[in-house]
Amino acid sequence: MTRGPDAGDRATVYLASTGTALPGEPVDNTALGRLLGVSEEWIDIFVGTRTRHFGWDPVTGEVRGSLADLCAEAGARAMDAAGLGPADIEFVVLATATPDTLLPTTACEVADRLGLDHLPVYQIQAGCSGAVQALDLGRTLVLGGRRAGLVLGGDVTHRFLAPRRDTARMPTEELVNHVLFGDGAGAAVLTDEPEGERIAVRSVLNSWTGRGRPPGQLLDWYGTTDRDSQRPMLAEDYKAIEEHVPALSVEILWDLLGGLGWGLDDIDFLLPPQLSERMTARIVERLPAGPAREVSCVAETGNTGNALPFLQVERLLPQFAAGNRALALCVESSRWIRAGFALEKV
Amino acid sequence: MTRGPDAGDRATVYLASTGTALPGEPVDNTALGRLLGVSEEWIDIFVGTRTRHFGWDPVTGEVRGSLADLCAEAGARAMDAAGLGPADIEFVVLATATPDTLLPTTACEVADRLGLDHLPVYQIQAGCSGAVQALDLGRTLVLGGRRAGLVLGGDVTHRFLAPRRDTARMPTEELVNHVLFGDGAGAAVLTDEPEGERIAVRSVLNSWTGRGRPPGQLLDWYGTTDRDSQRPMLAEDYKAIEEHVPALSVEILWDLLGGLGWGLDDIDFLLPPQLSERMTARIVERLPAGPAREVSCVAETGNTGNALPFLQVERLLPQFAAGNRALALCVESSRWIRAGFALEKV
Repeated sequence: MTRGPDAGDRATVYLASTGTALPGEPVDNTALGRLLGVSEEWIDIFVGTRTRHFGWDPVTGEVRGSLADLCAEAGARAMDAAGLGPADIEFVVLATATPDTLLPTTACEVADRLGLDHLPVYQIQAGCSGAVQALDLGRTLVLGGRRAGLVLGGDVTHRFLAPRRDTARMPTEELVNHVLFGDGAGAAVLTDEPEGERIAVRSVLNSWTGRGRPPGQLLDWYGTTDRDSQRPMLAEDYKAIEEHVPALSVEILWDLLGGLGWGLDDIDFLLPPQLSERMTARIVERLPAGPAREVSCVAETGNTGNALPFLQVERLLPQFAAGNRALALCVESSRWIRAGFALEKV
Repeated sequence: MTRGPDAGDRATVYLASTGTALPGEPVDNTALGRLLGVSEEWIDIFVGTRTRHFGWDPVTGEVRGSLADLCAEAGARAMDAAGLGPADIEFVVLATATPDTLLPTTACEVADRLGLDHLPVYQIQAGCSGAVQALDLGRTLVLGGRRAGLVLGGDVTHRFLAPRRDTARMPTEELVNHVLFGDGAGAAVLTDEPEGERIAVRSVLNSWTGRGRPPGQLLDWYGTTDRDSQRPMLAEDYKAIEEHVPALSVEILWDLLGGLGWGLDDIDFLLPPQLSERMTARIVERLPAGPAREVSCVAETGNTGNALPFLQVERLLPQFAAGNRALALCVESSRWIRAGFALEKV
């Protein structure tokens, strides 16, 4: 469907462009299965994802690219696509679960590489909802008077998944992590007036709903004094995730639609949560039927955490015509954050 | 000096209360020197700090309290002091350099313990400027329409400083970290109208100025695959810090005053950066003289990172009379962030 143009107003924030970065060549299931000692069929049954990218050599584990590398690449692309230079950018918000170091923040390093200076630079610690949290904060900053800013999200896996010798003895629930995740980063430029892609951010949902509920995901870290600890470092409660994420996705859909006064028929594109190819398919099956076309990336990129919504929006852009509307749904299972956003091309 | 009351307006955000938490009994230089095999005099010469608190047993290293414990305690005190319950709080922003886990975030855990639900919960990764970044975002969220929210900051040292056997062979620059830092957390309730302490947040400065400059501080982490790495995990460039922080503090002072149209004589209280007792004294010496009384905590708390400005504001409150003005200065040396804020009791 198409609707009339929008002149832009002070209460609306616009997405002017996106940029993304995926390291190296895609690693397919044949190559990954060989490395892990599992069959292609096993990967297909558990996650269905076909390829993913790693910023490290899958054979030697050598790290070839950091989160800062990926985020700087994605950020530079987004700024180029928006036609904006460093002097135009008034803030940076970067979301990740896997920062390169605790201090300095990866966000500061990315700001440096992009030639930015004398501006607020925030780094959000988050999982799958981080891109939406960054969008939410970026939007609030633009509504508060900033003219343009850069929001980014990305994750890298090398500190948890680079090959170790004991994959043959790994329990299934741990082995799944090795075929689920991938490395990547994404970025978007937000502006206070329609520029570039001229996409109005109509709504952002970012609501923590984890009270009294155990986490669905754990990602821990060691310092200098506790690296001999045997505590679990990476764990997913796949049963809880399979049970809750589809239902939460339905709630997010209705929340966003209700807040905007939109119906199912008003959405042209749907960006569902991207846990794995199979899980995304299961979520989409549970969503109420409508005319919206699905925009997913996980089958080719793997679960790239904080990068995912940017990768989806980048895939949306070539199809997104003036007047079109899109809804993105996002669930963070680490502690049950309901997230999402609504876009409209003006 | 005193000035007339302020009725509150839509463009002003108010600090209604603070709450802080320091674990266990203070550890003095006699006890700490004995543990580290250094003299009290050595500690006095290098940092001048007299006591600090640790959420772990200084003899055994056993961890007795997490960042979530400290932040939940500080947050509950701030909410109580403001007379607000969970239903009144509309967002949480927590800043730290040392999260308990990467996922779920400590901010989500704290929200759970405080009985909060269905609200945005952000965690900022930051060093000494984190409390100001949290205040900055909290203020932006209130200006964007939220009525009340909780901002927190805190850090814990057990993953980097709990006793190891090789302190006798530690180089000085590493040993200094063991006498510089302490554990702690602080919180503040922000409101859109004057409540509780009725303190107007007149200005917040949060500006990254690290372009092309090497970091002054490093804090790294290990995952599962790289815990045998020998890369440096905690390092401070004390020479760069001593050179740059006093000058940056002067810049922050004039920036804040200039933006507000205030002069030196308009400030009743000054909250200087709290790196160590000696370093704070050196910074204060370099600042232009004025009538403002200094409010510092570092000599008793050690450098508690993201908690410091909250600890200082809590010490300010009993002295802060209607019409009084205070200026807080904060420098993050990890990547040179200029931060600070101006308060006025209305």
